[in-house]
Amino acid sequence: MKTSRLEAFSDGVLAIIITIMELELKVPHAVELAALKPVMPVFLSYVLSFIYVGIYWNNHHHLFQATEQVSGGILWANLHLLFWLSLFPFTTGWMGENGFASTPTAVYGFVLLMAAIAYEILQRAIIAKQGRDSLLALAVGKDWKGKLSLAIYLAAIPLAFVSRWLASGLYVLVALLWFIPDPRIERKLEKREG
Amino acid sequence: MKTSRLEAFSDGVLAIIITIMELELKVPHAVELAALKPVMPVFLSYVLSFIYVGIYWNNHHHLFQATEQVSGGILWANLHLLFWLSLFPFTTGWMGENGFASTPTAVYGFVLLMAAIAYEILQRAIIAKQGRDSLLALAVGKDWKGKLSLAIYLAAIPLAFVSRWLASGLYVLVALLWFIPDPRIERKLEKREG
Amino acid sequence: MKTSRLEAFSDGVLAIIITIMELELKVPHAVELAALKPVMPVFLSYVLSFIYVGIYWNNHHHLFQATEQVSGGILWANLHLLFWLSLFPFTTGWMGENGFASTPTAVYGFVLLMAAIAYEILQRAIIAKQGRDSLLALAVGKDWKGKLSLAIYLAAIPLAFVSRWLASGLYVLVALLWFIPDPRIERKLEKREG
Amino acid sequence: MKTSRLEAFSDGVLAIIITIMELELKVPHAVELAALKPVMPVFLSYVLSFIYVGIYWNNHHHLFQATEQVSGGILWANLHLLFWLSLFPFTTGWMGENGFASTPTAVYGFVLLMAAIAYEILQRAIIAKQGRDSLLALAVGKDWKGKLSLAIYLAAIPLAFVSRWLASGLYVLVALLWFIPDPRIERKLEKREG
Repeated sequence: MKTSRLEAFSDGVLAIIITIMELELKVPHAVELAALKPVMPVFLSYVLSFIYVGIYWNNHHHLFQATEQVSGGILWANLHLLFWLSLFPFTTGWMGENGFASTPTAVYGFVLLMAAIAYEILQRAIIAKQGRDSLLALAVGKDWKGKLSLAIYLAAIPLAFVSRWLASGLYVLVALLWFIPDPRIERKLEKREG
Repeated sequence: MKTSRLEAFSDGVLAIIITIMELELKVPHAVELAALKPVMPVFLSYVLSFIYVGIYWNNHHHLFQATEQVSGGILWANLHLLFWLSLFPFTTGWMGENGFASTPTAVYGFVLLMAAIAYEILQRAIIAKQGRDSLLALAVGKDWKGKLSLAIYLAAIPLAFVSRWLASGLYVLVALLWFIPDPRIERKLEKREG
Repeated sequence: MKTSRLEAFSDGVLAIIITIMELELKVPHAVELAALKPVMPVFLSYVLSFIYVGIYWNNHHHLFQATEQVSGGILWANLHLLFWLSLFPFTTGWMGENGFASTPTAVYGFVLLMAAIAYEILQRAIIAKQGRDSLLALAVGKDWKGKLSLAIYLAAIPLAFVSRWLASGLYVLVALLWFIPDPRIERKLEKREG
Repeated sequence: MKTSRLEAFSDGVLAIIITIMELELKVPHAVELAALKPVMPVFLSYVLSFIYVGIYWNNHHHLFQATEQVSGGILWANLHLLFWLSLFPFTTGWMGENGFASTPTAVYGFVLLMAAIAYEILQRAIIAKQGRDSLLALAVGKDWKGKLSLAIYLAAIPLAFVSRWLASGLYVLVALLWFIPDPRIERKLEKREG
């Protein structure tokens, strides 16, 4: 079984998720610039989720470039990842429309955590099929970024009830971690792994 | 006529159906965790339908991998399947928003039944074009899974008026039947067929 | 310029149009079967539009199978067709939600007419590029189906104010004309054209 | 890294944006032709945005036809462009539903401006990777169209507070600039550039 149709389907779902989130930006009835003010937190949560879906698309792209064959298990591990990503519009809207209130912010983090776990499962399913010496297994290595992200999400979820901004800041931190590829850190960590 | 564009179009429709269902999860206005409670039945019906669409995508994928050429009849048999699947968001929302009430649960099963029949028609149209000795015809065999699913749906629809949970349980059972590929049962049934 | 990306984009837009129309089927609040009664006209208009989009996808598929190269003019002729098709959800919803009232039914026909004209323009743009001796030019011939469809739409629009059912019946007739490929009629007409 | 999946993902997002904008055309409750009157400004803004997304798809198509390899920077430059384009349904709806009022019209122009800047960044990222002697670099040249568009947007945004029609007219002008490929003007400007 080839990967092309799995990639096409995933691209479709990710493209729809990233665009459908925009529908939570409700068109205001007033025409002054001030009418955009209540839209701002929804906009901010939209930007954050847009970057997250972008990161997932990016990583998904890399993951399947190193993959040639797909098993039934990989198909379902992929659908499992898409399931948690499909909840982004809901949690993004809930967090944004309530100005990053504690509970919605924690639930937003919970869905981020589940998506990260689902990605981990998908990655392992592919490595299991390809073998421990495969290019992918070597590229992933000890996967410090994946593990660190999980740890930060786990910390952020209870912290949302202490300070909503701390939790949101941690979500931004994980996004930056994946967004900015710092070669120095990467090389250091590669050495430690080596 | 090649299958690639039919597959691309079907992937698009299935990707949209699976994602648009999520829009039935209405963002609550309250910010407590309790605000998610009324969303739960919609969430559960979403999970069930997500798995169903996943199964259909999976099977559709396999079906067209064993297919090389497409006729006008196959194009319309495919659109017929997509039509019934496109009603999933409606029936999922109706069943979920009313806490799995009898009538919506029966109607949900009716659309499941029609989709299963449409899949059967599509499969036969492809086999008719490929011949009884084709790989697909042998792989499908007597199609006990397809026939059993139809029988369970037919039983579940009236049972929804006796117990909504019994009917929903039967829908879950069919999903598990397709989701978990039990080699023992399969081998047994293959023997019985042989 | 190759046709693959134009086809992929068109497939995407058509897949979204065909699925988004379903959102006009508003989930009823009541749980009795009677609650589906007011949904029925919307459902019927959905079925009709689903078949129309299916026909357009089918014909679009054939059209570009006979096409190898795309010019700027063809790109815009294609977008022009997609524009009118993108209005289907609006006119379908308006006609369905008002029980096929005269004006919405006439406006529905107007958009059908514009889409048919846009298809005609697209077809001519492709033939103009390929030459009068091309396979496509021969396959299209005098295009009696296209011309007859335009004539029926033109008749149906004013007739919507006489009888809404007559107009809707004519829309169904055109759909059947494209849906059922009657070889006898086709051969007869081919002879007349020859 | 090949461009095919980036193109497929972008096609998906653009297809959804162009179709989702139509959802701002709210189905009227009345059945007279007059009921379409309040929909007209939304319709006009939809037509304008449809043409803009069409132009972006067209140009995106050309851009990546001249591109063979994709870097991480290009992936994110592309997502950045898609982000601003994804705000089109929001600004289109706001401008249309308020009859092209000053502030929404200025904000509409701001998002047009940001999308144009994002396109410029993407184009430069690709040229930077391909080299100054590449086909793309030569085809783009001094990019007078891109620069002129930016200048017109910058003028139109404050002018929206003087006359909403002047600003909208300027948006239409930029669309025409890209839509109508006038060979005379192009040759003249090419000479001036040469």
